Amino acid sequence: MDIIIVGFGAIGKGVAKVLYEKREYLKKNFEEFRVVAITDSSGAAIDEDGLDLLKAIEVKEKTGKIKNYPEKGKEISSIDVIRNVDADVVVEVTPSNLETGEPAKTHILESFKNKKHVVTANKGPLALCYRELIEEAKKYNVIFRHEASVGGAMPIINLAKETLAGNEILSIRGILNGTTNYILTKMEKEGLDFETALKEAKELGIAETDPTQDIEGLDTAAKIVILANSIMGMNKTIKDVKVKGIKRITPEALFLANKRGYTIKLIGQIKDGYLIVEPMLVPIDSPLNVKGTLNVAMFETDLAKEVVVVGRGAGPIETASAILSDLIHIYQATKR
Amino acid sequence: MDIIIVGFGAIGKGVAKVLYEKREYLKKNFEEFRVVAITDSSGAAIDEDGLDLLKAIEVKEKTGKIKNYPEKGKEISSIDVIRNVDADVVVEVTPSNLETGEPAKTHILESFKNKKHVVTANKGPLALCYRELIEEAKKYNVIFRHEASVGGAMPIINLAKETLAGNEILSIRGILNGTTNYILTKMEKEGLDFETALKEAKELGIAETDPTQDIEGLDTAAKIVILANSIMGMNKTIKDVKVKGIKRITPEALFLANKRGYTIKLIGQIKDGYLIVEPMLVPIDSPLNVKGTLNVAMFETDLAKEVVVVGRGAGPIETASAILSDLIHIYQATKR
Repeated sequence: MDIIIVGFGAIGKGVAKVLYEKREYLKKNFEEFRVVAITDSSGAAIDEDGLDLLKAIEVKEKTGKIKNYPEKGKEISSIDVIRNVDADVVVEVTPSNLETGEPAKTHILESFKNKKHVVTANKGPLALCYRELIEEAKKYNVIFRHEASVGGAMPIINLAKETLAGNEILSIRGILNGTTNYILTKMEKEGLDFETALKEAKELGIAETDPTQDIEGLDTAAKIVILANSIMGMNKTIKDVKVKGIKRITPEALFLANKRGYTIKLIGQIKDGYLIVEPMLVPIDSPLNVKGTLNVAMFETDLAKEVVVVGRGAGPIETASAILSDLIHIYQATKR
Repeated sequence: MDIIIVGFGAIGKGVAKVLYEKREYLKKNFEEFRVVAITDSSGAAIDEDGLDLLKAIEVKEKTGKIKNYPEKGKEISSIDVIRNVDADVVVEVTPSNLETGEPAKTHILESFKNKKHVVTANKGPLALCYRELIEEAKKYNVIFRHEASVGGAMPIINLAKETLAGNEILSIRGILNGTTNYILTKMEKEGLDFETALKEAKELGIAETDPTQDIEGLDTAAKIVILANSIMGMNKTIKDVKVKGIKRITPEALFLANKRGYTIKLIGQIKDGYLIVEPMLVPIDSPLNVKGTLNVAMFETDLAKEVVVVGRGAGPIETASAILSDLIHIYQATKR
């Protein structure tokens, strides 16, 4: 199976690394998974016989630009690569933009038009125009998968749609952002105030330099929109979500909650058609009370009743894990 | 898709009920799922145009025998039905026998020979001769699924093999038996001794009349054999499991464990090639510390790292949920 990786930041490199490390396993169990092009904003490396993934990672880390890949690197746009390089699947992993969805949206639509299946981790287009993407994928008869867009390595979208196939998902509640969970856990365990806990999360590389989207709940909001649309058949955008972040949570509030047998978590929830993100009291012994950067989701379903899943919500290899499972699904659905 | 239900106890009736309740959903999203035969030890009801599932349940509940289904009921063996009734899939849900695997083993092998896919909840043959079943299914080019055999509605086998596809599963630990979890939870919360808690579980219908297989850990042992073989590619049988039950756990032991921040759970685990079932200390804040009749499994994987899933391990509708997801998978893999 021939793959184009569009976007070569931490996640793109994670995908390349995983495809390299799993090359023998993939060849033995399925077929060779070749990366025939990698793009970033500088240009692309293209080799129809398959790129040397270790070299691609090295060039990117040393020079910051994939166009410097020896001989096969050049200045060419991602769109031109999607149009002109022969491949089965495009892995779209450029940074998420929750306002415009670009450039991911254009990359995805262009891939569909060129009869290429798409796997993405990108929340932007999914939170802004999910229906349009689904319709277009259908129109061009290609597969569109995005397990990695919510909860990183934590199985959630494919779990609900496939492992729990036949169940109606009645509600979803969960912690879908590792940064805020880390901050709240630190505040609870060590009595730190919000700013100090945030500073520490930044120093450890858990919080981004600009953590606004995380702490204000927008990242969680984007994720519950994706879940509402993809799992529960709704047609929502990020504007439909009532959002409240964690900035005003104090260590005193956590202490008082603890005394009553509760903790406070930033919960995203979809229930009775409403999408809400807000700090909520969670019983100490609830399965939703997971610590550190972990993510958790609780489904309420008609047949299986409650199902809870816990996993790592971020990290390049963890995210690549979800992308790999989508790639294997596409292989199985189209080639075996 | 045409289905034969072999075995019409609680689970078989649960499958019939779910297929009845979901008939419109299935027709709309896939195609009509018709039950063309139902068998029990008395005989069978057969209708190639599809049985009236509500009537079948009613007849079974009133008379105890499916052969009494009006007009279409007759004395005929399950084997003859498997051989002679035209259908796509056999749902094998006779009672599990962990010593011989029969009659399920014969039913399953006979289905394969007659080019029928099989979905089962039956632990017996899976724990005793997994490889043989897999080889036979392969030989006859049919699909063999058994999500319901471990953890009821809790996604576990398909979760590991499909949602986490591409991951190597390094170890599995979990609570896979709801009866023992209920007993230990009761003993911990109310200070009851083992016998009293067991008696209560029996009165509530949570424990079976003969709960030996549950409390001695054999049920959990069968389940970890199934997981070792189906998820981790091993070739084990129930004789390879080191098993210790919960009979000797005292409320004092639970009290002391609690005082140190632990609880005691009957844990099944597969690690470094060893299969072990025994009561273990589990930290109070571990995700494995789930209460009541809940089941839980923790996978350690190479890419996604730790993934935990919690769900209902038993109940006819919950088990039927897992069977339905397998039926939908077979439909999608063979008919769409």
